[in-house]
Amino acid sequence: MAKDGKKQGTDLHQSSSFSEWERKFSSQEERKERFLSLSFREQPRVVTPEQVNGYSYSDRLGYPGEFPFTRGVHATMHRGRLWTMRQFAGFGSPEDTNRRFKYLLEHGQTGLSTAFDMPTLMGYDADHSKSRGEVGREGVSLSTIEDMDLLFSGIALDHVTVSMTINCTATVAMAMYFAVARRRGIPFDRLGGTIQNDMLKEFIAQKEWICPPEPSVKLSCDIVEYCAESAPRFNPISISGYHIREAGATAVQELAFTLADGVAYVEHCLERGMDIDSFAPRLSFFFDVHNDFFEEIAKFRAARRIWAYLMRDRFGAMTERSMKLRTHAQTAGVSLTAQQPVNNVARVALQALAAVLGGVQSLHTNSMDETLSLPTEEAVKVALRTQQIIAEETGVTNVVDPLGGSYYMEQLTDQIEAEALEYIAKIDGLGGMLKAVEVGFPQKEISEASYRFQLMVDDRDYAMVGVNKYQDEQEQEIPLLHIDYELERKQIETVKAFKAKRNAKEVNEHLDQLRKACSSGSNVMPVLIDAVDSGVTLGEVSDVYREVFGIYTDPGTI
Amino acid sequence: MAKDGKKQGTDLHQSSSFSEWERKFSSQEERKERFLSLSFREQPRVVTPEQVNGYSYSDRLGYPGEFPFTRGVHATMHRGRLWTMRQFAGFGSPEDTNRRFKYLLEHGQTGLSTAFDMPTLMGYDADHSKSRGEVGREGVSLSTIEDMDLLFSGIALDHVTVSMTINCTATVAMAMYFAVARRRGIPFDRLGGTIQNDMLKEFIAQKEWICPPEPSVKLSCDIVEYCAESAPRFNPISISGYHIREAGATAVQELAFTLADGVAYVEHCLERGMDIDSFAPRLSFFFDVHNDFFEEIAKFRAARRIWAYLMRDRFGAMTERSMKLRTHAQTAGVSLTAQQPVNNVARVALQALAAVLGGVQSLHTNSMDETLSLPTEEAVKVALRTQQIIAEETGVTNVVDPLGGSYYMEQLTDQIEAEALEYIAKIDGLGGMLKAVEVGFPQKEISEASYRFQLMVDDRDYAMVGVNKYQDEQEQEIPLLHIDYELERKQIETVKAFKAKRNAKEVNEHLDQLRKACSSGSNVMPVLIDAVDSGVTLGEVSDVYREVFGIYTDPGTI
Repeated sequence: MAKDGKKQGTDLHQSSSFSEWERKFSSQEERKERFLSLSFREQPRVVTPEQVNGYSYSDRLGYPGEFPFTRGVHATMHRGRLWTMRQFAGFGSPEDTNRRFKYLLEHGQTGLSTAFDMPTLMGYDADHSKSRGEVGREGVSLSTIEDMDLLFSGIALDHVTVSMTINCTATVAMAMYFAVARRRGIPFDRLGGTIQNDMLKEFIAQKEWICPPEPSVKLSCDIVEYCAESAPRFNPISISGYHIREAGATAVQELAFTLADGVAYVEHCLERGMDIDSFAPRLSFFFDVHNDFFEEIAKFRAARRIWAYLMRDRFGAMTERSMKLRTHAQTAGVSLTAQQPVNNVARVALQALAAVLGGVQSLHTNSMDETLSLPTEEAVKVALRTQQIIAEETGVTNVVDPLGGSYYMEQLTDQIEAEALEYIAKIDGLGGMLKAVEVGFPQKEISEASYRFQLMVDDRDYAMVGVNKYQDEQEQEIPLLHIDYELERKQIETVKAFKAKRNAKEVNEHLDQLRKACSSGSNVMPVLIDAVDSGVTLGEVSDVYREVFGIYTDPGTI
Repeated sequence: MAKDGKKQGTDLHQSSSFSEWERKFSSQEERKERFLSLSFREQPRVVTPEQVNGYSYSDRLGYPGEFPFTRGVHATMHRGRLWTMRQFAGFGSPEDTNRRFKYLLEHGQTGLSTAFDMPTLMGYDADHSKSRGEVGREGVSLSTIEDMDLLFSGIALDHVTVSMTINCTATVAMAMYFAVARRRGIPFDRLGGTIQNDMLKEFIAQKEWICPPEPSVKLSCDIVEYCAESAPRFNPISISGYHIREAGATAVQELAFTLADGVAYVEHCLERGMDIDSFAPRLSFFFDVHNDFFEEIAKFRAARRIWAYLMRDRFGAMTERSMKLRTHAQTAGVSLTAQQPVNNVARVALQALAAVLGGVQSLHTNSMDETLSLPTEEAVKVALRTQQIIAEETGVTNVVDPLGGSYYMEQLTDQIEAEALEYIAKIDGLGGMLKAVEVGFPQKEISEASYRFQLMVDDRDYAMVGVNKYQDEQEQEIPLLHIDYELERKQIETVKAFKAKRNAKEVNEHLDQLRKACSSGSNVMPVLIDAVDSGVTLGEVSDVYREVFGIYTDPGTI
């Protein structure tokens, strides 16, 4: 090589530094002036050792299964065990959903995940006037312990893990689940699964609540405490970024607000006098996995690192299990298009791959038809097969954290971590997440990001294939699921008949005990399990909550 | 940290070396005893800096757009220009395929790629008795210059790049293409595109030939030479690993045999007295992109590095353009399943992502129905949309070589490079690829690999979703393309009418000139362009080749 980097007689040239290379190619035109990630992060043209050198492997990455768990919470990761393939399902009556559960288990699904209908989520029995038109429409209807029993009829609760997506009424569903297990003679310490039970993200993003934030968080932590004592294999909360992201947050906001929610739950439990290592190992998370492939992988890696340091250094956890961020993920519902729905199979496959490379423990892949209706069996099967193809055919499960060390990936992980830590510090400065929610801080940040993204779509700075680019005049037709709305009438009758045959005196006694537990601030769970077992319904429990804790009104709507 | 790596009072432990970590987790069970890539490479559990340190960034990677081009042949890669989305298409008459071409261009495809039918590929006109039942069945029928004109009717050949998949009769198709351009007044130096024209891979894998290897390679190089002189923007050969891989080769075999084919063509051209830098910049490649996600990405990166060093150090190329391996890729046809065909959309998306991360210049994504029939318009559109989703929605085009520096990726790239170089050395030892083919070396290696893979599938060591695992009793039904076989009769009539109206004397004179060019060893292209322009057909040219060069018989079938 001559001094100018050229080999003699040739036009061969190798830059001796990144800045020389940048200068050399500075005049080359690119397709856009700036390349932004889905979360508006300006993307570098390339990352080289010069941008990332000097990091400590053991502080930043570590070995898989070891602190800070950036490369994964297990040493063997998906070589040891595949993630749980857990398709979210629920519609119609408990019998309808039970059939879908069995269909999924027959086709190789490895865990169950339950969607409840709107009345159940908002604390109304199927026979309540406010439930009209909504019973079993977007999830399964659950009013009584008999519904819960039917939902898992013929399914061995000590052999399959069950996830339940329910928040305001999580205590009731959890109590019914335990009561059914008790009736079946299954000890609670053999029950594995997850209940979403994350009220903070409701106030931040999803906006389904009954009571104000403080008692809501208290009820969430009642489940955490009860499980720590009595059902140690059950994950009593799934601290959820999914809904925050789907409401329009950036990847960093999703990450930061979710971890800040986690901090708030931890602090609440510590204030109750619980020992950090008694409950932290069972805190679990739930993130979105959106379109931006590398940003999503980096998000999962940064999440594990931040949580590990928080638990060790801020909360003084003593066991590694408390420091491991385990997470479920779901492909991004908002990324799917009603236009050309078969394209969604491709989107979901790419997002699912990002989740797997990000090292998740459990995954739901959306069905191609979800923007049009509840998924058909065929569409759900393709979504499940997509996970199986990734697991079995692509080889990506052979090696732990295959992207580790990539200049770009490590830089991106560091950036996302730093930005998320900044948000967490800001929330701490506001007095914690409960206070931050009250002053509307995360809500405002999300709505700004959402607005900015909408502008990008409107200006076609971000192309959505089939929506603002490559549109078709003629639409693909795919088969859709049709729900028999006759079921609402049947479900109402069932609930009414159930109520009629109860011992009214006993029910009232249980409701009184619950009222007392609520007022005294003691853990509602023990009382609640007996109450639902004796026939108290979901709506009745929710009425007690409304009465004792009050009903919350969105400050934004006052 | 105490001496044993534990933080006092906690169970926190960080291994101080890879071997310590290995020992610590050695007892943890994994799902399988060995984890093999699709090409039987034993996969490490994890790769850390300890396994890859000490490499020279500039020798192994370099900056994008600079030697050895591991990180890409362009500095800006897909930020500068997206890869060409080029769906392989062809069936029925030239008019049928012309309509499909226009459909694809309307839906955002950026280049054309032509599939020809079996008679065309084997050198028989549509009206030949050997063409019966095959006319237009698996590609478009091409016998005359009028067919070529109709095929690209209404398409501006100086504005779109055209790829033609044709080998034994590549000279004829190329001559017809040039003759049509000449009739339309388009200078040859404004024609861009690619012709496959790679006969060596036919002898290795695809097994479609007319003449013996030596004259076949000579004819291939006639196109290379002619284009170097007269059509400098046209890629005169697409050195193809695709068919080698689809025949059952491993990723390394595909890579090694393809590059060794490239070496053979280069050596043939040099023997003719051509200057390396006069033709090497226009050599292009065509690789498969199969299921094993990281192996495929590493294959593309290793391909660029090997080729750059070969061209610079073995062949003394002086211009960087000669050292840049540019490639088309196609998702793996053999990976698709007839069972549950919608699952193929997910497979294709994952494979296409690997191609893009591998830095390809052009890509065909297979349609979900290709194992069942020629693709329908709807299926082709989903396949094209899959590329557009990757390009527009996933953000992976924002950063050049995003996997660069990953411990695993760099180790894998090095391994694949080393193994491919070993094969190339072995082939050199046999006297080059022509000789290696004559003794059946690559053929035998491929057939062994293919057999080994079949055993893995039979033993369910490798699961194919829907085939040997997760089978369904009931099959998905998708719409299929039905070809009107009436077209054969019409096409025969058209060719007969064309022949009838020609000037027979002129045709014979041109055939004589061609015969002389063939016998004398001079470049056939100039003679051929005039010949086809005056009405000489594809079958007639092929007959001259058979007569002068002889007909080849597979040594394996003697």
